Amino acid sequence: MIISSRSAAMQASPIRKLVPYANEAKKRGTKVYHLNIGQPDIETPKVFLEAVKQTDVKVLAYADSNGWEPLRESISNYYKRIGLPYETEDIIITNGGSEALQWAMLIACDPGEEILVPEPFYTNYRGFAAPYLVELKPITTYPQDGFALPDRPTIEGLITEKTRGFVLSNPGNPAGAVYSREEVRRIADIARDRNLFIIADEVYREFCYDGKTATSFGSMTDVLDRVILIDSVSKRFSACGARIGSLTSKNKKVMAAALKLGQARLCVPTLEMIGSKALFDLDPDYFLPIRQEYEKRRNIMIDALQKMEGVLCEKPGGAFYATAKLPIDNAEDFAIWLLTDFEYQGKTVMLAPVENFYQTPGMGRDEVRVAYVLKAEDIEDAMRILKVALDRYPGRKS
Amino acid sequence: MIISSRSAAMQASPIRKLVPYANEAKKRGTKVYHLNIGQPDIETPKVFLEAVKQTDVKVLAYADSNGWEPLRESISNYYKRIGLPYETEDIIITNGGSEALQWAMLIACDPGEEILVPEPFYTNYRGFAAPYLVELKPITTYPQDGFALPDRPTIEGLITEKTRGFVLSNPGNPAGAVYSREEVRRIADIARDRNLFIIADEVYREFCYDGKTATSFGSMTDVLDRVILIDSVSKRFSACGARIGSLTSKNKKVMAAALKLGQARLCVPTLEMIGSKALFDLDPDYFLPIRQEYEKRRNIMIDALQKMEGVLCEKPGGAFYATAKLPIDNAEDFAIWLLTDFEYQGKTVMLAPVENFYQTPGMGRDEVRVAYVLKAEDIEDAMRILKVALDRYPGRKS
Repeated sequence: MIISSRSAAMQASPIRKLVPYANEAKKRGTKVYHLNIGQPDIETPKVFLEAVKQTDVKVLAYADSNGWEPLRESISNYYKRIGLPYETEDIIITNGGSEALQWAMLIACDPGEEILVPEPFYTNYRGFAAPYLVELKPITTYPQDGFALPDRPTIEGLITEKTRGFVLSNPGNPAGAVYSREEVRRIADIARDRNLFIIADEVYREFCYDGKTATSFGSMTDVLDRVILIDSVSKRFSACGARIGSLTSKNKKVMAAALKLGQARLCVPTLEMIGSKALFDLDPDYFLPIRQEYEKRRNIMIDALQKMEGVLCEKPGGAFYATAKLPIDNAEDFAIWLLTDFEYQGKTVMLAPVENFYQTPGMGRDEVRVAYVLKAEDIEDAMRILKVALDRYPGRKS
Repeated sequence: MIISSRSAAMQASPIRKLVPYANEAKKRGTKVYHLNIGQPDIETPKVFLEAVKQTDVKVLAYADSNGWEPLRESISNYYKRIGLPYETEDIIITNGGSEALQWAMLIACDPGEEILVPEPFYTNYRGFAAPYLVELKPITTYPQDGFALPDRPTIEGLITEKTRGFVLSNPGNPAGAVYSREEVRRIADIARDRNLFIIADEVYREFCYDGKTATSFGSMTDVLDRVILIDSVSKRFSACGARIGSLTSKNKKVMAAALKLGQARLCVPTLEMIGSKALFDLDPDYFLPIRQEYEKRRNIMIDALQKMEGVLCEKPGGAFYATAKLPIDNAEDFAIWLLTDFEYQGKTVMLAPVENFYQTPGMGRDEVRVAYVLKAEDIEDAMRILKVALDRYPGRKS
């Protein structure tokens, strides 16, 4: 039996496909520091499990297809607290931000149509676009510019008659770039003038450092009919395993289409929605110590990387990732070698090669994504180990 | 902003689109018996919530993309108890049976390719197929034949060079038909000889009456490389709100593609997998009283329907649905009228029009799906009310 060519052609997650090597290393007794995945070690707020455990239903029934209304209300309140004008009716609950992103692309594009996306970008965008025959077209950004967006003519030069919108994450994954208000405005202007959607993945909104804040596309009042806002509890509340996200828009046609997609898969899990409501009801001060903690971890990691010979890594402004250029030829080979042929004091590190976060062939081959989601002493230890590994790696460039 | 034509063209769920009318009726104080949706009132086994409540994790982390291994083991054990040869590695956990069905269609078909499906069929199959440009091609079955499959030449006559497989539910939704061993073998033979996939939706496996059992496609050992088995906890354990399903296959390419699709959306919720494992670990005797209860409800409902003048409804052999032909012109109009213009002793009933469960235009226009998921006395009351409604309906055919 031959499977469809489109499912055969899908990429394995470059973040997850090295997992078997890591498992082998662990079986050998090697400790592996996971810098490869955005799985924070920050504790999930206890209110999540407490709310779930207070639930006492006799029949665990289907929920509404657009999500449990009290959760949607709490998300609306959260948006209003940060100055975004979204009502309960503008919000539909999804299976993580992942499902919301899939739906947004499907709602924006017919087969063969295009979405512009600044590269490097969250590699799973590919897995969302490919099954629906949506083409991702890269807007290349560069480490030496802090991964800033190019100027308006450069972006407009990429627009064709097939272009239906932008997808972009702000703060960004994998480079941690935070767009300035002017950059956000630039995209909004282009979208307005060229009739494009803006799929705004803002799941890292609270994680901005050095006093910066992320400008939400939801604050651009002249383009609200073209903004599709993606959010999630995963990173925001360190609740990746809850799989609760949302798609939000003031565009009634978008919401009607999203509801039909929601009806087709019936609903998302009830218990996870109950727990997630408790998260959105947390005092906004919850984020202050978390942000400080990530900022401290970032400083430790980036300072260490910048001291390693041949490593290039600008200090990112947000999220909890950085993209680092290493003195090697092929980051995937190096990442595998770290798991199969290297250990130092019984430990090694796992990295995410960034090549598959670029759409342009050949870019990012010597770059890795590192997540600063582990506690400070683990990051320090991991950096010490990475330095030794780079010294010992046979494929190191002189 | 114009949304994509494919998302605009998606059907609203015919099961759920009448919900606003029901909500209006409830606001007026009318009690609505929900015969329209397969939401059982059977209690979810307590072990589900107990297992969830015993969970004590500090960080609610991502799970493996193929699902929590202990749950996959428990499902494998469940399969082995019923004589199906599936190992843990043959199983991937999905967001309900819905996601598993979407993936199966995507794995079987490139855009424009076809899946044969006996009609009437679970209407959400359309919502799964349409976004991926998979064409559903109907194998028409008829109430007067008990919705039995046609003979081999009739089925083979529908196969084109674009045909990639079958999707069928057994026991069936919406007609409750249980295929004989010979019918299952017929499909298996055709699939083998014509190189087709069999997407076998067997979520109602345990619900067969009159001493019948459902033959699983997983027991057809000569076609296991082409069987993709779909299962779910929703109906089996009255846990619709858990949204835990599975895709199972002996075909390694299918499983590799499913894993990539799983990686793209990261994972399913951890807590729901913990609860679901407890369900699959239940003593198989759990199903005996449940099956008896549904059989009793079926008898009450179908006996009552058969006594109503002008109503045609064969007694279905499985699941918990029946398709009934009513003495009216348009079942959707009648279903809406029931909610907007009718009540009897402060009560009414909600029905699912079946027209959208057929792919062939014009079929099923005077048919409704009724689910016998409510307790016996409620079904009795609902049937009494439906009888009065049919007598009073201005659109009743003489």
